[in-house]
Amino acid sequence: MREMANYKATYFKWHVEGGIAIISLDRPERKNPLTFESYAELRDCFRDLTYADDIKAVIFGSNGGNFCSGGDVHDIIGPLLKMDMKRLLDFTRMTGDLVKAIMHCGKPVIAAVDGVCVGAGAIIAMASDLRLAAPEARTAFLFTRVGLAGCDMGACAILPRIIGQGRAAELLYTGRSMAAEEGERWGFYNRIVPAAELDAEAIKLAKRLAGGPTFGHMMTKTMLNQEWSMSIDQAIEAEAQAQAICMQTKDFQRAFDAFVAHEKPVFGGD
Amino acid sequence: MREMANYKATYFKWHVEGGIAIISLDRPERKNPLTFESYAELRDCFRDLTYADDIKAVIFGSNGGNFCSGGDVHDIIGPLLKMDMKRLLDFTRMTGDLVKAIMHCGKPVIAAVDGVCVGAGAIIAMASDLRLAAPEARTAFLFTRVGLAGCDMGACAILPRIIGQGRAAELLYTGRSMAAEEGERWGFYNRIVPAAELDAEAIKLAKRLAGGPTFGHMMTKTMLNQEWSMSIDQAIEAEAQAQAICMQTKDFQRAFDAFVAHEKPVFGGD
Amino acid sequence: MREMANYKATYFKWHVEGGIAIISLDRPERKNPLTFESYAELRDCFRDLTYADDIKAVIFGSNGGNFCSGGDVHDIIGPLLKMDMKRLLDFTRMTGDLVKAIMHCGKPVIAAVDGVCVGAGAIIAMASDLRLAAPEARTAFLFTRVGLAGCDMGACAILPRIIGQGRAAELLYTGRSMAAEEGERWGFYNRIVPAAELDAEAIKLAKRLAGGPTFGHMMTKTMLNQEWSMSIDQAIEAEAQAQAICMQTKDFQRAFDAFVAHEKPVFGGD
Repeated sequence: MREMANYKATYFKWHVEGGIAIISLDRPERKNPLTFESYAELRDCFRDLTYADDIKAVIFGSNGGNFCSGGDVHDIIGPLLKMDMKRLLDFTRMTGDLVKAIMHCGKPVIAAVDGVCVGAGAIIAMASDLRLAAPEARTAFLFTRVGLAGCDMGACAILPRIIGQGRAAELLYTGRSMAAEEGERWGFYNRIVPAAELDAEAIKLAKRLAGGPTFGHMMTKTMLNQEWSMSIDQAIEAEAQAQAICMQTKDFQRAFDAFVAHEKPVFGGD
Repeated sequence: MREMANYKATYFKWHVEGGIAIISLDRPERKNPLTFESYAELRDCFRDLTYADDIKAVIFGSNGGNFCSGGDVHDIIGPLLKMDMKRLLDFTRMTGDLVKAIMHCGKPVIAAVDGVCVGAGAIIAMASDLRLAAPEARTAFLFTRVGLAGCDMGACAILPRIIGQGRAAELLYTGRSMAAEEGERWGFYNRIVPAAELDAEAIKLAKRLAGGPTFGHMMTKTMLNQEWSMSIDQAIEAEAQAQAICMQTKDFQRAFDAFVAHEKPVFGGD
Repeated sequence: MREMANYKATYFKWHVEGGIAIISLDRPERKNPLTFESYAELRDCFRDLTYADDIKAVIFGSNGGNFCSGGDVHDIIGPLLKMDMKRLLDFTRMTGDLVKAIMHCGKPVIAAVDGVCVGAGAIIAMASDLRLAAPEARTAFLFTRVGLAGCDMGACAILPRIIGQGRAAELLYTGRSMAAEEGERWGFYNRIVPAAELDAEAIKLAKRLAGGPTFGHMMTKTMLNQEWSMSIDQAIEAEAQAQAICMQTKDFQRAFDAFVAHEKPVFGGD
């Protein structure tokens, strides 16, 4: 068990309120690009979150009207062009490790997307569990536009599961921008929220999830990822085991007691 | 080969007409909760259906304006709270076995959902092949609201394949109700039908499927489940084998003969 | 490396302009049915495309107002009824090999669908990467209507990934026609285009993709298929490797140079 309420981040903003960690990138004047340093620190932060029982839910928010403009052209793409294969693979594995860390952190992660959300920024939104968007959100998996392939940080596996293989193929081949309205219609965004209310709505949703049952939420997240490539029968057996574990938590008893007493349950996370 | 036209059920309603089995739960005054007994009997019934050639299609319908309210709080959750791990796992495996039995019964199963469809009730709808809903249908995977995880009876594997990973995550984390209109828009419900016409529409659809080719439908159902976690190339080879088997049925010849004679084919199921 | 600009096809139309191969079936008076010969020649053609660096993108178009009416009843179904199991499996494997060849050809394939698109025709559209449709397109996976199962040429694996398991089940069980509007709403068709503009729009999209980065597009296509049945973590590692390879192409450098010079990149495919 590690406490992260007083965690300090160097390359991004980190703020905790009521058990909810609120993260955002902090170079708003450039629409919040990622750098080698912020990639690595985000990866480490999400890895630490796995053990931080004082954090119940995470918001990855926007800053200055934009979510994230992806890997910086000068700070990242320039140096990559001078690297040998070993160092290139070190880099692509680090970016992939950020996605893995988000998926394995054991807490629901909510992306609150305003404005530019492109490249690795679109990937961070994709790797989150739930996604809210302002009407102005412009989401682009633009890797082909910088001469690369659409298969970046898990996009060819994860995006099709969210919006379907045909729509994912179009976005990944062309690199074109997905409008917020399309994103909601296709199931990428759970909801469109006016920009002025985006933070408040994300916090409201995070609070609801932080209210628990957090052990249950951790198990939901684990199994949503774990069952990805299982057969149906394997998945059903895996859930029989996972849910039997949850039935031994006190939160299951608390919900029953509250129901009998006609009260709202107060969960404890154990 | 087992005949089930005269099958008798103790804990749910069972009715056969024209080769179509119509099942519904039978405690309408409490919105049709499940009990240990009805779970077990449903599991056994769907297992028997695998061998019943006289049943061509199955409808899981509503009763008294509701589909199913899930596991009963007093009859199921209360006792679960007193069980040790062995007995908890016995229970979660039994519920999972019901989903497996629905998926392996070899007949198309149509859920006709009116009113409350929550918890294990939502799972039964999810495990069916096709789903019709009345506009009043309220579908909730509400496991987190009783202190548990969303991973119940295969939900974390199956629901994302039906409505996408992002929408499934929202429903499974929050336990919120999905409106019928949302369900249709997201691909959970194949069609919305006025409550007064729900049973008739389900029977019409079931009759169309019962008209055959039933061997083909059995193979379609088998492969829709079987190919879940295969690679694309494996799936294509598996279908080459499955369809070659179907090409040796008399129904393939019957369809050809009917086409040549400008008639509607009459299938025989062999 | 094989050049295909001067490739000659016997059983379908083949035309190359600006690095784009345009294929269509050529029996418009019968709505373009497939025959044993056209199946085999298409399979071989798509296999050859894997090595043809002069072709950057492929359009599978319509002809005379229809896409494809599937396997011909007299030319294919009649003879199949006289075949033994070895020959039936030879046939179903050949049809499956066409799907594999489309998926492994290394070029984006765009289906431009007008009018009838049924049976194996619907499969060819499904196996393409991107799909445009005229409002008049009628797409039916009608295998059950000829007495067979919905599991044909990979449909039970691929169609659910494009439109979801519930909608795919309905189309595959019933064999009913999917309207163009439904197809767009469900994510099967990327866009609806008036019939008169269908070819021009397909060519415009193909040109955009042919403009590169073609090495990137080949890798996107490879990984969209390759990661199908991987776990999330395996997929992320696979993409770390694939994208590191792409970072050593000259096209990555070209995109950077163009960005710095405020120009549009001109990709070279290496």
